[in-house]
Amino acid sequence: MDKKIIGIDLGGTTIKFAILTLDGEVQQKWSIETNILEEGSHIVPDIIETINHRMELYNMQKEDFVGIGMGTPGSVDIEKGTVIGAYNLNWTTLQPIKEQIEQALGIPFTLDNDANVAALGERWKGAGENNPDVVFITLGTGVGGGIISEGNLLHGVAGCAGEIGHVTVDPQGFECTCGKRGCLETISSATGVVRVARKLSEEYAGESQLKQMIDDGQAVSSKDVFEFAEKDDPFALMVVDRVCFFLGLAVGNLGNTLNPSSIVIGGGVSAAGEFLRSRVQKYFEEFTFPQVRNSTQIKLAQLGNEAGVIGAGSLALKFLEK
Amino acid sequence: MDKKIIGIDLGGTTIKFAILTLDGEVQQKWSIETNILEEGSHIVPDIIETINHRMELYNMQKEDFVGIGMGTPGSVDIEKGTVIGAYNLNWTTLQPIKEQIEQALGIPFTLDNDANVAALGERWKGAGENNPDVVFITLGTGVGGGIISEGNLLHGVAGCAGEIGHVTVDPQGFECTCGKRGCLETISSATGVVRVARKLSEEYAGESQLKQMIDDGQAVSSKDVFEFAEKDDPFALMVVDRVCFFLGLAVGNLGNTLNPSSIVIGGGVSAAGEFLRSRVQKYFEEFTFPQVRNSTQIKLAQLGNEAGVIGAGSLALKFLEK
Repeated sequence: MDKKIIGIDLGGTTIKFAILTLDGEVQQKWSIETNILEEGSHIVPDIIETINHRMELYNMQKEDFVGIGMGTPGSVDIEKGTVIGAYNLNWTTLQPIKEQIEQALGIPFTLDNDANVAALGERWKGAGENNPDVVFITLGTGVGGGIISEGNLLHGVAGCAGEIGHVTVDPQGFECTCGKRGCLETISSATGVVRVARKLSEEYAGESQLKQMIDDGQAVSSKDVFEFAEKDDPFALMVVDRVCFFLGLAVGNLGNTLNPSSIVIGGGVSAAGEFLRSRVQKYFEEFTFPQVRNSTQIKLAQLGNEAGVIGAGSLALKFLEK
Repeated sequence: MDKKIIGIDLGGTTIKFAILTLDGEVQQKWSIETNILEEGSHIVPDIIETINHRMELYNMQKEDFVGIGMGTPGSVDIEKGTVIGAYNLNWTTLQPIKEQIEQALGIPFTLDNDANVAALGERWKGAGENNPDVVFITLGTGVGGGIISEGNLLHGVAGCAGEIGHVTVDPQGFECTCGKRGCLETISSATGVVRVARKLSEEYAGESQLKQMIDDGQAVSSKDVFEFAEKDDPFALMVVDRVCFFLGLAVGNLGNTLNPSSIVIGGGVSAAGEFLRSRVQKYFEEFTFPQVRNSTQIKLAQLGNEAGVIGAGSLALKFLEK
C-alpha cells in the first residue's frame, strides 16, 4: 500500500481529520467535536483516540503513515511542536502536543498555525495551482492570511508573517482589537463590513432597505450587506465599494511587494463570490504597477472547509525527506 | 589557497568589482568606467578584460574561483543569465551575459537585479546580521528594495517582488512614472522629498528659510530639506515628518506582512542617518501590531557602496553546492 499522511484542522467547535495520499487526494475524512472543558485537556487525548479508532477501522498501521500535520489556533512553536495561548480552546498554558501525539501513536507529527495551514492547502490543491508564490487571505470573523514565497511558507522572526488582517489600510480608520488603527480586519472581516455599514449609514441620506434596517436597530450581517448590494440597494453598493477599495489596496500592496502568481481570497465573506472578487480586482488594478497587474491574479478560494486538513497534511510531507 | 568569489556591481557610471572570501570578506576591489557607447556593446568585453587583467596581476587561475555573481539594472532572466531593457546602459536588446562571460573566463556566472543584490549584501555582511528574514529598502533617485524571507531572496512570478517603491501609500497622492498614484517613491525618493516640500510650501505660511528658497525659485535638494530640518527649520521639519509618516506606513506594513528581523534603510536619502531612522521608527510603531513592533527592527544600512559587490558575490555561493 502507498504511504499516507494525516491532516488535522483543530478548531474551537470541531476537529477535522483527513487521510490523504502523498498527492493530496483526500481518501477518508471525519470530524469530532472539540471538548474545551477542563482547560482543553481532553483535546489531545481525543485526537489520539479517534486516530487509533480510525486506523483500526481501516486496518492501517503506524508504518502506513509518513506523518501527521495539524493546523491550530494560538501561538505555535514549530520546532518544539507546542502551542500556547489558544483562547478558543481554553489552552492558556504550554501544550506539548508533538510529544504527546508521537508518544501515543508512533507517527511523526508537525504543526503550524491555522491560517498558514489553510494557505498551504489552497496553494497545493486549490486556487494556487501548486505555484511557488501564492498569498492566501481569509475573510471571516477576523482576517487572517498565509504567504508562500519561492515555495516556502513564511513565518518571520516572531511567527507573525502573513498577518494580513493587521496591515494598516486607513491610518485614520477604526480602532482594532490589536491596539492600533485602520487594520484591514476592521473593515473587511464579517464584523468589519457591518461596522463600515453602520458608519456610512450616519451620512447616507437616500433610499435604502439596508439603511432602514440599521436605523430600525435590526441585527445586520455582512451577508445581508452583500445580498442587498446584489439586489442593487444603492447604500449597500456603497458599503461594498468601500470594503473592496481597502481590500484592493491591501491585496494591491501584497502584489507590489511579493508579486505572487495569485492572491487567493477565502473565508465566510468570500461567499459573495465573483461579486466581491471582481470589485477587489478593480481596485487591485488601480493600486498595482503594470508588471504586477499583468502577472498577479486575484482568485477565489476553491477548497472551502477542506483547505485546513489538506494544508495540514502537506506539512507532514517534510518527513519524506528523512 | 582557499577558493574565492567575484562580485560585480554594474551601474550606469561605473562597474565595481571585488574578490571576496567565501565568508564575504573583501580582499581586493577595483572599478572601471561604464562605457555605454554603441548600445552598451563594450560593457561585457570590458568586464572580461578587467577580470583577466586582475587575475594575472594577483597570479590567480580560474580554478581559484567558485563563481562570479553580478547585480545589474534592467529586467533579468536569472535562469538564462540574460538582461534586457537596461536603459542607463543602452541595453535595449537581449544581452546573453552569462554565456559570454562563462565562455571567456571559464568561471560559473550568475546574476540578479541590483536592488536585490544590495539587499543580499546588507543581509549577509551588513545591518541584516545574516538573519533569514531581512527587508532592504533603498531611497535614492528612485526607491527600490529586496526581500529575503526564510533565507531566500524573493522574486515573485514576474520578478517584481521587492518593488517597495511602488507600494501605494497615499491613494490620492502624486502621480508616479509607473502610471499609478501615491507610490512610496513619489514621496520618499530624493526627488520625492523635494516634491513634498514644494507641495507643502503652497500652504505653509510661517517663517522658514527652506520655504523662502523654494519661493525664490532656488534649486532645492532632499539633502537641503534634511539639513534645514536638523537646524529646526519648522517647515523643513514638517516636510520630513510627512515623508517619515509615509515611510513608516510602508515599512510598518512590510513588518505586518513579513515580520522580518530587520528592515534596513539605505540609499542616498538615508545619509540623514538617525535623524531619519528615529522618525521612521516612530511611525513604524504606530502602524504595526504589538508582536511585530517588538520583534522587527528598523535599521540603517551599513555597507554603503559595497553592498552591491558583496551581495553579488554571495550569489556565486550557489555554485558551491554543485
